[in-house]
Amino acid sequence: MTRILFAALLATSAPLVAAPLTPIEVGALRDTALKDDYAWDIVEGLTTEVGQRLAGTEAEARGRVWAVAKLKAMGFANVRVEPFDMPVWTRGPEGAEIIAPFPQKLAIAALGNSGTTPPAGITGEIVHFDSVEALETAPDAAVRGKIVFISQAMPRTQDGSGYGYFGGPRRKGPGIAGKKGAMAIVVRSIGTDHHRNPHTGVMSFEGVRPIPAGALAVPDAEQLVRIIKRGKPVTMHLTLVSETHPGRSGNVIAELPGRDPAAPILLVGGHLDSWDLGTGAIDDGAGVAIATAAAKRIMDAGRPLRTIRIVWFGAEEPGIFGGLAYQAAHGKEPHYAAAESDFGADLVWKVNSKLGEARKPEAVALQLALAPLGVVPGATDEADGSDIDPLIEGGVPGVGLSQDGTGYFDLHHTPDDTLDKIDPEKLRQNVAVWTTMLAVLSGGIEEPKRSRRR
Amino acid sequence: MTRILFAALLATSAPLVAAPLTPIEVGALRDTALKDDYAWDIVEGLTTEVGQRLAGTEAEARGRVWAVAKLKAMGFANVRVEPFDMPVWTRGPEGAEIIAPFPQKLAIAALGNSGTTPPAGITGEIVHFDSVEALETAPDAAVRGKIVFISQAMPRTQDGSGYGYFGGPRRKGPGIAGKKGAMAIVVRSIGTDHHRNPHTGVMSFEGVRPIPAGALAVPDAEQLVRIIKRGKPVTMHLTLVSETHPGRSGNVIAELPGRDPAAPILLVGGHLDSWDLGTGAIDDGAGVAIATAAAKRIMDAGRPLRTIRIVWFGAEEPGIFGGLAYQAAHGKEPHYAAAESDFGADLVWKVNSKLGEARKPEAVALQLALAPLGVVPGATDEADGSDIDPLIEGGVPGVGLSQDGTGYFDLHHTPDDTLDKIDPEKLRQNVAVWTTMLAVLSGGIEEPKRSRRR
Repeated sequence: MTRILFAALLATSAPLVAAPLTPIEVGALRDTALKDDYAWDIVEGLTTEVGQRLAGTEAEARGRVWAVAKLKAMGFANVRVEPFDMPVWTRGPEGAEIIAPFPQKLAIAALGNSGTTPPAGITGEIVHFDSVEALETAPDAAVRGKIVFISQAMPRTQDGSGYGYFGGPRRKGPGIAGKKGAMAIVVRSIGTDHHRNPHTGVMSFEGVRPIPAGALAVPDAEQLVRIIKRGKPVTMHLTLVSETHPGRSGNVIAELPGRDPAAPILLVGGHLDSWDLGTGAIDDGAGVAIATAAAKRIMDAGRPLRTIRIVWFGAEEPGIFGGLAYQAAHGKEPHYAAAESDFGADLVWKVNSKLGEARKPEAVALQLALAPLGVVPGATDEADGSDIDPLIEGGVPGVGLSQDGTGYFDLHHTPDDTLDKIDPEKLRQNVAVWTTMLAVLSGGIEEPKRSRRR
Repeated sequence: MTRILFAALLATSAPLVAAPLTPIEVGALRDTALKDDYAWDIVEGLTTEVGQRLAGTEAEARGRVWAVAKLKAMGFANVRVEPFDMPVWTRGPEGAEIIAPFPQKLAIAALGNSGTTPPAGITGEIVHFDSVEALETAPDAAVRGKIVFISQAMPRTQDGSGYGYFGGPRRKGPGIAGKKGAMAIVVRSIGTDHHRNPHTGVMSFEGVRPIPAGALAVPDAEQLVRIIKRGKPVTMHLTLVSETHPGRSGNVIAELPGRDPAAPILLVGGHLDSWDLGTGAIDDGAGVAIATAAAKRIMDAGRPLRTIRIVWFGAEEPGIFGGLAYQAAHGKEPHYAAAESDFGADLVWKVNSKLGEARKPEAVALQLALAPLGVVPGATDEADGSDIDPLIEGGVPGVGLSQDGTGYFDLHHTPDDTLDKIDPEKLRQNVAVWTTMLAVLSGGIEEPKRSRRR
C-alpha cells in the first residue's frame, strides 16, 4: 500500500519534480545506501587525521585543507573555501578545587567565551542556586564577590528538547551572575551522563563584563551539592584561563552539478568545526559525513536535475559564524531546500519539513519514502538546523531529519565525543535516509548508462 | 527444601559452631540487612568528606581520622590505627600529544611507580606492540630510545579473570620496556569502557631503572592505533611527572567483642586507600562500607560468640602494604576466618571458601544460607582478597564473596570511580550477604533482650 500511495503522490507532485524517480528506483538507492562506507570513511579520516577542530584555530584550518582534498577526491565540483573573520576564544590551564571544608579536586572545563582568571586562579565562597530563576531573583548582595553554582540537572529526551530550557544555566547563568557582581560561575554540565567529563559549550555575556565561567562534570556537581548540604561554608579555588583574539574561519563548499544549472539548488551539510575537548565525531564529523555520503550516492547513481551543494560550515559552535557568512554570501540565490545533519550519529527517527503549502504533496512523498527506514512522519510546517536557520528564517524551504537524541547529551561537547561512539550500522541508516531525501527532491536522476544497467 | 537441608547441615556442624542460629534467625537478619543504610552512610560520607585517599598522603591520613571517628560513633570497640612506613608515589603534571603526523592531544595518566619525565616532557618515536609477548621477543634495538606502545584490549568478564593475563601490559610491560632501553612506555588502559578516562594502577620495575609509564584512555589508544596504521612514523611528546618519597600509612582496626575472648576471631574488611583520580567509591569505599555495615548489623542483633574484627587496610593499591603490616603484627593470632570486600559494589553472585576439610559442612551451610540472595555455591577449597592473601597463604581460613565484575573494569582506577556509580539496592544485597556470612560463622548471636523481642 505504501508503494501505491507513494506513486500516486509522486504523480500529484509531478509538475514540481521533473522526471521523478519511481518508488522502485528510490528503493534501490536506499537499499544500496544501507551498505554505505563513504560516511564512515569521512568521519574516521577527519577525526583521526585532524582530531579536534576548534573554530578559528590552526586545527580547524587543517580540517579545511583535509575537507577540500577529500571532497575533490570524491569527485565533487567547485570545491572551495569561503573564508570569514571571527573572534577566536581558546582554552588555557583550568582546574577547580574545594579548599574547605573537604579539600578535593573537581573536574571542570571552561565554557566558550568564558572570562579568564589570573594564571594562579581565584578563591571564593560558593553560593548555590538550583536554577537560573533562583539566581535571577536573589538579591545582588547575596551573589556579589562570590562564585555562583547552579546545580540544575538536565532530563534525557529523544527529541533533544531538554537542551532548551535546561540549557539555561550555561547560556544565561554567566550573564546574570556577571551582572550581579559575581566573581565567577560554575554550572552543572548540561549533559545526561555520569562521567568525569565536563560539557563545554558557548554562552554570551551580552554587554556584561565577562567573568570566569565553567562547567563541572555531573558527578562533581553532585559531589558539590552533597558537600554544600553539610551546612558549612564552601570555598573553591578556580583556575579558568582563556583568551580571545581576532581570527579567521571558513565554509568548505562543494557541488554535484545538476542537469539544469538554472534550477534552485539543494543544500545539505553539517559543521566542520568542533569543540576542543573531543575529536568532534558525533558533533559534527558524523553530520558532514552523512550529508556528503548521501550526495556521493546520488553522484554514483547519475545526474540529478538540481545541483546539490554540500557545505561543511565553519565556526558553528562559538556562534553560527559559518551559517551567517553563508547567508550573507548566498542567501539570495534560489534554494530548493536546505537540510543540516548536526545531532549525532544515532538513527533518524522523524522527518519534519517546511517546503511550503504548495509543495505539501512533496513533503508527504518524502515521509512515505522514508517510512521503510523506520522514520516517523512529523510536521510539514517546521524544519531547523543551526547553520541553516538563517536561511530558513529568510524563507528557504527546509527539511529536518531528526536523529534520536536519547544518548546524545551523554557525549555532547565532552572529551568523550570520539569515533568509538559511532555505530557504523546506525550511520548507514542515516546515509540511506539522506540519500532517499535527496533522491525525492532531486528532480529526478538521469543514469549515465541507463541502457546497460537495465 | 533449602531450609530443611540447611537445618540438617547446621546440626552436622554443631560441634564446631557453638549455639548456631536457626535458619529463621539467619533469615530475619538477612531480610533486615536488605533494608540497610549503614553501608551507604559510610561510603557516601567517606567519598564526600574525604574524597580520594592516595596511599601515604595527607588525604589518606584524613581518611584514617574519618574512619576512627565513624567506627567509634557506630559503637565498635578497640578502635585504633596501626601505622606502618612505606614509599609514597605521587602524581605531578601529565599529558600526551601526537606531534606528527597528525598533531593532537591524547588522554593519559601515569601508572603508579612510574618513573618521571622532566617537567618539560620528552619526545620520542612510537614503537607499537599488540602484547607483552610481542614486546618481549622484539630485538632490543627496535625498542631502544623509543616510546613503547602496547595496544592489547582487555575482555569483559563476570568473574574479573580478564584482569589477570590482560593486565600484563600494565604490570609487566614497563619493566620489560625499561630493560630493553626504551625511553618510556604507554599502554592501552587496562579497562573495558570507552571513556576518555585513563586507568591507572600499580606496577613494579623489579630492579630495572624506572622509565616514565602511562596508560592512555581506551579511545585514545584506539586512536593511536588508527594513526599508526596510516604507516607514517609517529612522534609523541610525553609529560609524566611524578615523585617518590618515604612516608607512612596505617590500618584502621575496630572490633565487636565476642562472648568468648579466647575464640579465634572473624576478620572482615576492605581497604581505605584509593587511587588519586576518582573518590574511591567502588575501590574500595564500598568494600569497607559493606564489611562494616554487616558487623554493625550483628552488633544490633546481639553478641556473637566470636570477636568480629574490622580492618580498613591502608595502602593496598601501591602494593598491599597494609595487608603485609597486618600479617606481620597479627598473623600468629588465631583467626576463625578472614574475608575482604574489594571488587566494587555490584551484586554478590558467588561464594567461595577455604575453611578446611573438617569444616566442609560449615562451608556448605554458608552456601545454602546465601542461596536465597541469588548467590551461586562456588568452590570450598579456595578464597582470596588482596589484603588477606598473606593470611590465607599463612593458613588462615578464608571466605570469598564474589561480586559481579561485568562492569567493574569500566570504572576501576579511573576518575569515574565516584559515588554515583553505586546502586544503593545492590549495596544492600552485599550487606545482606555479608551479614548472613557473619551470622553463620559467628558461633551464635546472643540477643541482649531476647525475652522482649519474642
